[in-house]
Amino acid sequence: MRFSELFTKTRKDTPSDEVSKNAQLLIRAGFISKEMAGVYSYLPLGLRVFNNIVEIIRQEMNAIGGQEIFMTALQRPEVWKASQRWDDEAISVWFKTKLANGKEIGLATTHEEPLTDLMRQFISSYKDLPAYPYQFQTKFRNELRSKSGIMRGREFIMKDLYSFSKDRAEHDEFYELAKQAYGKVFDRIGIGEDTFVTFASGGSFSKFSHEFQTLTEAGEDTIYLSRDKKLAINKEVYNDEVLAELGLDKDELEEVRAAEVGNIFTLGTKFSDALNLVYTDENGIKQPVFMGSYGIGPGRTMGVVVEKYADDRGMIWPEAIAPFKVHLVRIGDDGEVVKQAEDLYEKLNSAGVEALYDDRNARPGEMLGDADLMGIPNRAVVSDKSLKAGGVEFKLRRAQDIEIIPVEQFVKKITNK
Amino acid sequence: MRFSELFTKTRKDTPSDEVSKNAQLLIRAGFISKEMAGVYSYLPLGLRVFNNIVEIIRQEMNAIGGQEIFMTALQRPEVWKASQRWDDEAISVWFKTKLANGKEIGLATTHEEPLTDLMRQFISSYKDLPAYPYQFQTKFRNELRSKSGIMRGREFIMKDLYSFSKDRAEHDEFYELAKQAYGKVFDRIGIGEDTFVTFASGGSFSKFSHEFQTLTEAGEDTIYLSRDKKLAINKEVYNDEVLAELGLDKDELEEVRAAEVGNIFTLGTKFSDALNLVYTDENGIKQPVFMGSYGIGPGRTMGVVVEKYADDRGMIWPEAIAPFKVHLVRIGDDGEVVKQAEDLYEKLNSAGVEALYDDRNARPGEMLGDADLMGIPNRAVVSDKSLKAGGVEFKLRRAQDIEIIPVEQFVKKITNK
Repeated sequence: MRFSELFTKTRKDTPSDEVSKNAQLLIRAGFISKEMAGVYSYLPLGLRVFNNIVEIIRQEMNAIGGQEIFMTALQRPEVWKASQRWDDEAISVWFKTKLANGKEIGLATTHEEPLTDLMRQFISSYKDLPAYPYQFQTKFRNELRSKSGIMRGREFIMKDLYSFSKDRAEHDEFYELAKQAYGKVFDRIGIGEDTFVTFASGGSFSKFSHEFQTLTEAGEDTIYLSRDKKLAINKEVYNDEVLAELGLDKDELEEVRAAEVGNIFTLGTKFSDALNLVYTDENGIKQPVFMGSYGIGPGRTMGVVVEKYADDRGMIWPEAIAPFKVHLVRIGDDGEVVKQAEDLYEKLNSAGVEALYDDRNARPGEMLGDADLMGIPNRAVVSDKSLKAGGVEFKLRRAQDIEIIPVEQFVKKITNK
Repeated sequence: MRFSELFTKTRKDTPSDEVSKNAQLLIRAGFISKEMAGVYSYLPLGLRVFNNIVEIIRQEMNAIGGQEIFMTALQRPEVWKASQRWDDEAISVWFKTKLANGKEIGLATTHEEPLTDLMRQFISSYKDLPAYPYQFQTKFRNELRSKSGIMRGREFIMKDLYSFSKDRAEHDEFYELAKQAYGKVFDRIGIGEDTFVTFASGGSFSKFSHEFQTLTEAGEDTIYLSRDKKLAINKEVYNDEVLAELGLDKDELEEVRAAEVGNIFTLGTKFSDALNLVYTDENGIKQPVFMGSYGIGPGRTMGVVVEKYADDRGMIWPEAIAPFKVHLVRIGDDGEVVKQAEDLYEKLNSAGVEALYDDRNARPGEMLGDADLMGIPNRAVVSDKSLKAGGVEFKLRRAQDIEIIPVEQFVKKITNK
């Protein structure tokens, strides 16, 4: 894409109403726009990052048998009353509204109840199990305060998968599979090394749930981490009994700040009991379905990536989720420079390499500053100077070294990367 | 995908609370599920159709310079007050809700106001124009009644593109381009022949808007159609003056029922005036931006396709938007039949042909009935009988003829189709 055609612009000033680094940088770079506190629109570059994250998650959910669906934001109170979660005392972040006929309805904070009810259409026998529907759907949460940018919004898309299993054994097997799939997701996104399975509080059906916590000072959680064993304990369940149970010693644990990017939870029969989701087993006996839930916030993850990798000059995207692979900057407008830059842009397009081509002919400082702010991982500058030196000036966003590479060689190098 | 792994099921009974054919069939086939009147969840097969439609629209919007964004459902009242559209008298279908601090906010019925306000960040000079942001975003409309299935919902996704141009001339040029792009969209979806550009009522800035109306008895509109000239007039503007202006004669027009699948509208400076979206022109003079809006409802279009093509036995999908290209049915479970069917399924997968493979070993009538209900365009049956006759029994969903084709030949035929 040509920079001159992109309708968004970068800005120099830090938005005065944002305290979080992720919102500040994403707004300055034109990736998102604030509608109100905790409510952000995704603009073209931001949406590209977001969609790259979504696609990685989708592939890994499909790989473990997930089937994608798309539920609704408007929800009937009946299913929430059945589980005793309709009252604002039970869920404090409800947004509610009214149908034209005066009937009160809710805006999705989550989807356990409507999905459990929906599955009654399809589950009646043990032959119908297991089932793993998932979706990318908007959740609305009426938080009192919202200051963490896209890390904690009042409106945000969540990937939520729900497992419907015959019994605990079948559930446990999938739960482990999901845990591994989550590991792959965060590896592929580029935060795997600093993301740890973390024991957190469970419910009536399991002592623990598991969070995926990514180390960052911007995180809202305190966790106790064993880097050696690659696991952690959330502060909420950090006590001697749990340490003993997990065979961990206080001395091997480090207290660190982290942000939750995913969580998996054993729901058991809480919702199937409440909504009467039962199946007939091999012996003709009716049994409640055993459930689990598995969430990842793609926007939240994107915010964590910004917080984690940004430097003084701007954002730094891991290659797998970057809005473009290459940021091509043309400095100067004399004939040969324009020709070489246009040629290179065409070659990258032909090779299927997504490039943002800064063809604005603005001041070099402005263009290079924008490239740093936007954080595309590979920068290529074509200028009079670079051509005289023998080609393209190549630089990784995260490094300092600059390398001159002949144009053809650069295309090959970046295509194979 | 294997039918045995799909978590949805078909049902024989027509849902008693649905009067529209599209909702009845889509629910019976397990494509959608009703949350409440006018509010439907998309299940795996339905979502596949929906996404196929979305992808066609996306490609055609990108081809005319559209840049995809994703705005929010929660909207600030301020921007709507600026255009005098916050009151329920101005927009009768508002859903409203409240932030935790008591402030009233709205749920998106459409996005002109927030987007016009957003674009003030990026448009200040004639050099910033034109711009064509678009999105696939959920709209909420609090309709008093909702009986048309996914053709008119209370919650539905809309593709809305907005054009921001320097002046009427630049606008008119894009408006024509968008009209052509819409034609391509409906051609590709498979309803092009029966979809007509229709003159409808305009606003302060243009006498007419243009609707894309698809012929179907289930439509809510009456239009006056000239098949020869491939255009129509909506009843709302059908009068002698308009006929004269368009050079049409009453006698050449046919009164028909149709459903609106898209519309394009010249907004002029209505919203840029209200929200102060101005730019500085080549002469240093401030000018209001000239706007247009361009909508297509992918779900509505999907509903129209069902209404239009369904027969007594079920739905019939055009190939470009079908959930799968091939519905492979295995009848019987003796060794050779299973082997040949599994082989064929593998071959289709390897060739990149998406197939739904009915491996349930259910009664033939049930499996063939499900195939008819679901409406996948190409049906292939592998049975003892078909193998003895020489291969696969091939049938188009929309035709009666059955053809026996050797397995290898069938894979080639369907791959190249």
